[in-house]
Amino acid sequence: MAQDFYAKHQQTLDKAIEVTRTREFWSPYPEMPSGKIYGENAASEGEAAFKARLNRPFELEMPGIEGEIGEEHSPYGFDLGIRYPRVDIDTLIPAMQSSLKAWRDAGPEQRAGVCAEILERLNRRSFEMGHAVMHTTGQAFMMAFQAGGTHAQDRGLEAVAYALEAQTRTASDARWVKPQGKRDPLEMDKHFRVIPRGLALMIGVSTFPTWNGYPGLFASLATGNPVIVKPHPHTVLPLAITVEVCQQVLREAGFDPWIVSMVVDTREAPVTKELALREEIGVIDFTGSSEFGEWLERNCHHAQVYTEKAGVNSIVIDSTDNLKGMVQNLAFSLSLYSGQMCTTPQDIFVPRDGIETDQGHLSFDEVASAIAEGVRKFLSDNDRATAVLGAIQAPVTADRIEESTSLGEVVLASEAREHPEFENARVRTPLILKVDSADEDTYGRELFGPIAMVIATDGTDDSIDRARRLAKSKGAITWGVYASDEVVLERMEAAALDAGVSLSVNLTGGVYVNQTAAFSDYHATGANPAANACLCDSAFVANRFRVVETRRHAA
Amino acid sequence: MAQDFYAKHQQTLDKAIEVTRTREFWSPYPEMPSGKIYGENAASEGEAAFKARLNRPFELEMPGIEGEIGEEHSPYGFDLGIRYPRVDIDTLIPAMQSSLKAWRDAGPEQRAGVCAEILERLNRRSFEMGHAVMHTTGQAFMMAFQAGGTHAQDRGLEAVAYALEAQTRTASDARWVKPQGKRDPLEMDKHFRVIPRGLALMIGVSTFPTWNGYPGLFASLATGNPVIVKPHPHTVLPLAITVEVCQQVLREAGFDPWIVSMVVDTREAPVTKELALREEIGVIDFTGSSEFGEWLERNCHHAQVYTEKAGVNSIVIDSTDNLKGMVQNLAFSLSLYSGQMCTTPQDIFVPRDGIETDQGHLSFDEVASAIAEGVRKFLSDNDRATAVLGAIQAPVTADRIEESTSLGEVVLASEAREHPEFENARVRTPLILKVDSADEDTYGRELFGPIAMVIATDGTDDSIDRARRLAKSKGAITWGVYASDEVVLERMEAAALDAGVSLSVNLTGGVYVNQTAAFSDYHATGANPAANACLCDSAFVANRFRVVETRRHAA
Repeated sequence: MAQDFYAKHQQTLDKAIEVTRTREFWSPYPEMPSGKIYGENAASEGEAAFKARLNRPFELEMPGIEGEIGEEHSPYGFDLGIRYPRVDIDTLIPAMQSSLKAWRDAGPEQRAGVCAEILERLNRRSFEMGHAVMHTTGQAFMMAFQAGGTHAQDRGLEAVAYALEAQTRTASDARWVKPQGKRDPLEMDKHFRVIPRGLALMIGVSTFPTWNGYPGLFASLATGNPVIVKPHPHTVLPLAITVEVCQQVLREAGFDPWIVSMVVDTREAPVTKELALREEIGVIDFTGSSEFGEWLERNCHHAQVYTEKAGVNSIVIDSTDNLKGMVQNLAFSLSLYSGQMCTTPQDIFVPRDGIETDQGHLSFDEVASAIAEGVRKFLSDNDRATAVLGAIQAPVTADRIEESTSLGEVVLASEAREHPEFENARVRTPLILKVDSADEDTYGRELFGPIAMVIATDGTDDSIDRARRLAKSKGAITWGVYASDEVVLERMEAAALDAGVSLSVNLTGGVYVNQTAAFSDYHATGANPAANACLCDSAFVANRFRVVETRRHAA
Repeated sequence: MAQDFYAKHQQTLDKAIEVTRTREFWSPYPEMPSGKIYGENAASEGEAAFKARLNRPFELEMPGIEGEIGEEHSPYGFDLGIRYPRVDIDTLIPAMQSSLKAWRDAGPEQRAGVCAEILERLNRRSFEMGHAVMHTTGQAFMMAFQAGGTHAQDRGLEAVAYALEAQTRTASDARWVKPQGKRDPLEMDKHFRVIPRGLALMIGVSTFPTWNGYPGLFASLATGNPVIVKPHPHTVLPLAITVEVCQQVLREAGFDPWIVSMVVDTREAPVTKELALREEIGVIDFTGSSEFGEWLERNCHHAQVYTEKAGVNSIVIDSTDNLKGMVQNLAFSLSLYSGQMCTTPQDIFVPRDGIETDQGHLSFDEVASAIAEGVRKFLSDNDRATAVLGAIQAPVTADRIEESTSLGEVVLASEAREHPEFENARVRTPLILKVDSADEDTYGRELFGPIAMVIATDGTDDSIDRARRLAKSKGAITWGVYASDEVVLERMEAAALDAGVSLSVNLTGGVYVNQTAAFSDYHATGANPAANACLCDSAFVANRFRVVETRRHAA
């Protein structure tokens, strides 16, 4: 191997393993898009690199390339025009299988080193990645740089750390000596080797291709499974850049670059099911619709399937001693990326008799109005608004806002906004509705996008009970609660344990219910229908590899 | 809690975790049925305790008991006549769900302490358990004491150790401090709680109710999942005694005893599918037929399913520098428990041109005859023979021997033997056949029981290739190889990695291909169709629990 990437990154990997245990704050990838950190020209060079991608072929090295494919359109209003390799699966898969052995035999440390090097190089390209994520997902640039760049890199390294620890937990060689009373002991030499499950398939999502994709991609790669990346046909570029960097580092490390490959399809001719059903596939990671996630879980018995699907996230408001902080915090959470996060709250449960606050008793209507007014104020400056909202990724999401206005009483209407830079950008502000707890059919389904409901309940116990039932039946990734009374908080925590949902308590400062930090916060629990796995824990990596033992009498 | 079982067993648990890492020899449960260890009267008291069980009701404490059920018959020729509680599932399951919270909230350490106490008490009852296992499975007493008693206890503790380590790997509380440049840092207090997946279902097997059952039972229990034990209707007693001890310790520790419950059914009216499909079930462990294992994997999407199914185990003989040792070792492996182990070799691949040995060249026929003669000699003393063979658990297995004689050329005929103590015991010696590698339909399917085949191949590469294809298509839990040449061994090891099968190399002494030692050897790999899991590794426990986080601004 030309370079020992494990030696180069060992300290970082050791630290990463340590913080996944302590859950303290740590990140090796600075989240500020600052010239001081990334280089004076990094911003302009990153933008230029992105622009140079447009309207031309994107090259990757894979056996079986047979033409070009691509249909991306920026939510900011222009075609990307990038043409990716179209690859023949029946040529690609056997080639990847042939390459598996060398990757398997490289061992956990060398694989972790290669993965860490890939992530470091991706980090250097965070500006380019920011533009790529922005113009496929619709995220505003700052968020795209962070969630699509540095935070995704964090999540990738976290998975590598878990994978390295899991594979090296146990001795690879042992001398086993069993006493036999007065006779000589039985002595055996044992050798334990990690093997991958097969090829891995990572199915990317349109909104968070890297943040949701890197954990599975890097967990599979670090455990020895060559990875086929199957991006959403409308969000290819961020993962294409990722695969390009993977291939570059693999090549330098002496491996076949197509150990990480990419299969691009179109909405009209999808190939995901065909890929997922191939018996060579041993691991599948998926983020997306509940419908497709369940199809994978029910049909791909030959593979280990990790899914993150949809859910309905709840906020329970019982009382607050910081009304202003609560409203500001919720306003940001509802606005960020126009509610297109699987962690965005949808249902805000408030007693119909109102709540106690540091500003006195507020009626149900006053609570709903305070939240609506908070969002309106937060988005009153259009430059700030667009820098938080970003753009709507899919036209169907914009349509859903229109269709939802009749589902309840509108307390804040959604507006289309002009973007200061991109005249055709699809920018929408949140729609907030009031509904009654009787309208379970309305608030009880996921309405993906900037659509929130304030729901009048019979009291906080009723609120908690509704949130719990909803999480258990439909799934939930996040819960928030506002209460001044510890007894109420305990009841909410008990419900969170019961429903298997992570809970944020009384958030009023610069931490938001829809954000989680790698190495410390878990994303999803795997304990309710929203996801069958958690990003990232030991369970996420432990079953991506198996151990084969050989033993013989000691010499 | 009356007694702190965790404090009592902490050293044992710490040591157990340590040896699962080093894979050195260790066992806290002495395998010798010796009066010096277990007490002078332990043997007679154990036998008396077993006899006192016969022909009367067996009491367990469970909500929903509605009568009696039981149809066990000893393979040594008499009815056990034990009547177990018949329980109403619709009463039992809600009661177990209500009991879940206290068990969940006890936390990983207290649960591990209770589990270790259960295992210690089971250890003290190893003589009684030996008779119970003997007279349900047909194992001879010495094996029943060890495999059904102490070695099963080892496997149980191993699972508890893995579960404890996995649940306590990560801090349960953390202070997260994120720098914000010149502003105050963001500070959050985070709390992480382990929750179980739900209720667990452990489906017992007729031949190894405890050895194969304890890993799943204790892994689920230690991770907070109340466990329904569903024994094979003909092998209930060993698990009934186990549940009795579990209930006793749970009660003493202040928990509802039915946190471990037992549902007994009959062959005529099985309830396993109904139980497995209940949505309250979060974990299923199964050992048994491939057909039922696959049904569970394909239909129980609501639960985490761990299966150990059937396979075809191979021995590849290329050459040996210890013909006598090889033959003796194989003779014992083929005879032990009349081949009714999922680890017993079935297919012995030998080049049709013969092999080189320390006693000169042997033709294919001479190799087959040497093995047959080795078994014949080993079993020539009838007392020794019956002490190794035990009895045939199921009549269908005895029938299979008869049906198989025409499948090839008989090199050793199976004999029915008289048992020195039990006149109606179902004792059979192994049948050994010669077949040609062309007869893949014959050697390519599992013939459970004392049936082995010596298969003539085109050479060792052909032997290895056939073993590999068989393992990949039908599954295999064990492989053995005999070769004097390291190059051949390397080829066999490469095939083992490819097929995901554990490999024993040149066994000629007191270690046998069909035996594995807890804490050191893995049983099955989870990497081929014989099993989707390994007993025991991190993957076996990691997904039996989930983590729920709560976070709030630091005070």
